[in-house]
Amino acid sequence: MSMSGALLTDHYELTMLQAALRSGAASRRAVFEVFARQLPGGRRYGVVAGTGRVLDALEHFRFGEDELAFLAGNRVVDDATLDFLAGYRFRGDVHGYREGECYFPGSPIITVEGTFAEAVLLETLILSVLNHDCAIATAASRMVCAAGSRPLIEMGSRRTHEMSAVAAARAAYLCGFAATSNLMAGRVYGVPTAGTAAHAFTLLHDSEEQAFAAQLASLGTGTTLLVDTYDVARAVRTAVELAGPGLGAVRIDSGDLTEAAREVRAQLDGLGAHGTRILVTGDLDEYAIAALAAAPVDGYGVGTSLVTGSGSPTAALVYKLVAREGSAGVLEPVAKRSVGKPSRGGRKEAFRRLDESGTAVAELVTTGGRRPPGARPLQTPLVRGGEVLVREKPEEARARHREAFAELPVTAHQLSRGDAALPTVFD
Amino acid sequence: MSMSGALLTDHYELTMLQAALRSGAASRRAVFEVFARQLPGGRRYGVVAGTGRVLDALEHFRFGEDELAFLAGNRVVDDATLDFLAGYRFRGDVHGYREGECYFPGSPIITVEGTFAEAVLLETLILSVLNHDCAIATAASRMVCAAGSRPLIEMGSRRTHEMSAVAAARAAYLCGFAATSNLMAGRVYGVPTAGTAAHAFTLLHDSEEQAFAAQLASLGTGTTLLVDTYDVARAVRTAVELAGPGLGAVRIDSGDLTEAAREVRAQLDGLGAHGTRILVTGDLDEYAIAALAAAPVDGYGVGTSLVTGSGSPTAALVYKLVAREGSAGVLEPVAKRSVGKPSRGGRKEAFRRLDESGTAVAELVTTGGRRPPGARPLQTPLVRGGEVLVREKPEEARARHREAFAELPVTAHQLSRGDAALPTVFD
Repeated sequence: MSMSGALLTDHYELTMLQAALRSGAASRRAVFEVFARQLPGGRRYGVVAGTGRVLDALEHFRFGEDELAFLAGNRVVDDATLDFLAGYRFRGDVHGYREGECYFPGSPIITVEGTFAEAVLLETLILSVLNHDCAIATAASRMVCAAGSRPLIEMGSRRTHEMSAVAAARAAYLCGFAATSNLMAGRVYGVPTAGTAAHAFTLLHDSEEQAFAAQLASLGTGTTLLVDTYDVARAVRTAVELAGPGLGAVRIDSGDLTEAAREVRAQLDGLGAHGTRILVTGDLDEYAIAALAAAPVDGYGVGTSLVTGSGSPTAALVYKLVAREGSAGVLEPVAKRSVGKPSRGGRKEAFRRLDESGTAVAELVTTGGRRPPGARPLQTPLVRGGEVLVREKPEEARARHREAFAELPVTAHQLSRGDAALPTVFD
Repeated sequence: MSMSGALLTDHYELTMLQAALRSGAASRRAVFEVFARQLPGGRRYGVVAGTGRVLDALEHFRFGEDELAFLAGNRVVDDATLDFLAGYRFRGDVHGYREGECYFPGSPIITVEGTFAEAVLLETLILSVLNHDCAIATAASRMVCAAGSRPLIEMGSRRTHEMSAVAAARAAYLCGFAATSNLMAGRVYGVPTAGTAAHAFTLLHDSEEQAFAAQLASLGTGTTLLVDTYDVARAVRTAVELAGPGLGAVRIDSGDLTEAAREVRAQLDGLGAHGTRILVTGDLDEYAIAALAAAPVDGYGVGTSLVTGSGSPTAALVYKLVAREGSAGVLEPVAKRSVGKPSRGGRKEAFRRLDESGTAVAELVTTGGRRPPGARPLQTPLVRGGEVLVREKPEEARARHREAFAELPVTAHQLSRGDAALPTVFD
């Protein structure tokens, strides 16, 4: 199978292309925008993630022999369309929010401009990447907020599709997670990787003592020992006996974590292991993390809830045609009028208005080129004439998210369902 | 990047391997089982999907130069472990439920047997594939049940990670969906693909009439016209005027779908287009599909809720060591005793007990080789000595699911949250 993502596309995009090639409308200039009508789950803000992955995918979006043979063999489109696809590459422009930036309902996260033909083909791939990555990033950001200064490790790979896992680890890192368990995310994106040990490792050995001794002998006293396979108090005693008070950490994965952490902390301190950290795991989400704020916990491992967007596994972003060249050759705003799903026509620009203290007060979305004085522009050129302009390291997006989040009003820190932390003002 | 999935693995599996190589326990025979402690979302049954993808991945699970260089460069494991990984290939056995089969809490869906070293490395990849695919398949099966004889088209690619989308389309097809919008699923798995048109296509043209005419001219009167961009009644009139009464179908994507379908059906019939079908889309899930049973709808397009598992995006499957060779060289059952998450030791066999009418009445899970007379065995050999034994076409799993579902008691048809449709009896 080739590396092209060109078939990560919906059937109807190609049949629309075929019909538009025939009607002649395929060559009209078109402007598509990616935005969310609302933030799922009553979230107070969304986090942009996936833009870098979109740009990578764009460069490999080609219909090669393999793809064309499939489309021809299954009569998905006619010969004229196959010819068009054989020569296809995106030569248009893309601009949008950078990764790590926050967004709100109606924020034009990505704007794609080109002919209808070249822009319509990107709908599914762009939405797939952004809907997944933004959903995970938004959940991750809430968890980082709830954890305060304590580090979070992403360990949810096993609970989601194997490739989603890699993207989820990346998105979590952009939002402030310290590390991931996913080695591919380390390999591909440079996300720091970390791990402890599983119950299977303890069960494999003839006793917990032998298992701990084996782990310490191989990985050193800085390692993290899993202490809840049998009896936690006995395991902690064994751990410190074997490792000494310099033991790196213990992990608790079951039971009442607040209570267990208090007991283990007291036990560790009693054994002189004041520096041994306590890592807790086990179906944690942002609410459970917040509830552990007063417990003597030094770090959190988060799995299922992170990779499934903590109840909101998709960001509900849409890709809508907002303007296209009319018969007079001029770009005109367009919008559907479907019941309950109206769209807002016209190419948009976006700005964040801050008050004198530097706190964000509104998301401003304008049409017609109006630039509100003093507001921070949110869009940046990403692709020009098909050439990708922006290459960022995850650390850049991570730093940007820290700043963008710090700029939000404190209502953004609320985990409860509610209104967006900023109003979106259309002008 | 190589095609190997070997880094789709958690960091701790490699560090456990390192410690077990050092302690000598790595070479002990081990039995791991994949099962669900409970069915998420109060589901009445689960559907096995992803086994074929696991077997494909197993054959590419190699630590090549690229993978080893990453692990060495990041000091994930020591040199002895790198040497082991360089020569690694799975040479153990796998048996389990076939795709399309139903499962219940405790069903041993997959059993992996080999040395601890070879089996522990597969944990994350096996769980990632099965947790995703089983979650989607289970949601899909409920939707197929709710839709009765009406066809379902999977069109959720844009709402999930781009590669999850392909697996989701496959899982939905296994459970009885008629087609997918995802072209890659057509290319890779032979799932039939289908599509209609988007609002953007109508908006692209100077009028709805021009858009419909263009679509009909290119795709024929058998096509599906999207009728809710502006005014539904006007669009239906225009559609039949242009296509004649032989128009294939219309799609409604907004508004009250029951009411809209009734109005459109009456209008189509009034125009003589008795054979024109009505396809509805727009945030449908199994409950919305069931609620449309009495409406004159001919097919459903399902997106978000399918690819996100309709509220349960992961199947909560775990991979647990249930037996391992002890110091005496004999396989012994093992089980952790963590609070609230106990496991059941011993290598298991599974059977489905049917009553005289052929209706399933219990899931029987035995240890020690007991084979209940008359009950249907549920496990089959999948891999022997590292060689994959089973290659199935999606149609085979699809037929199996039809049979396995038909065998369940009618309580399995209930969409409400509740107990599993079969009790799991451990013996």
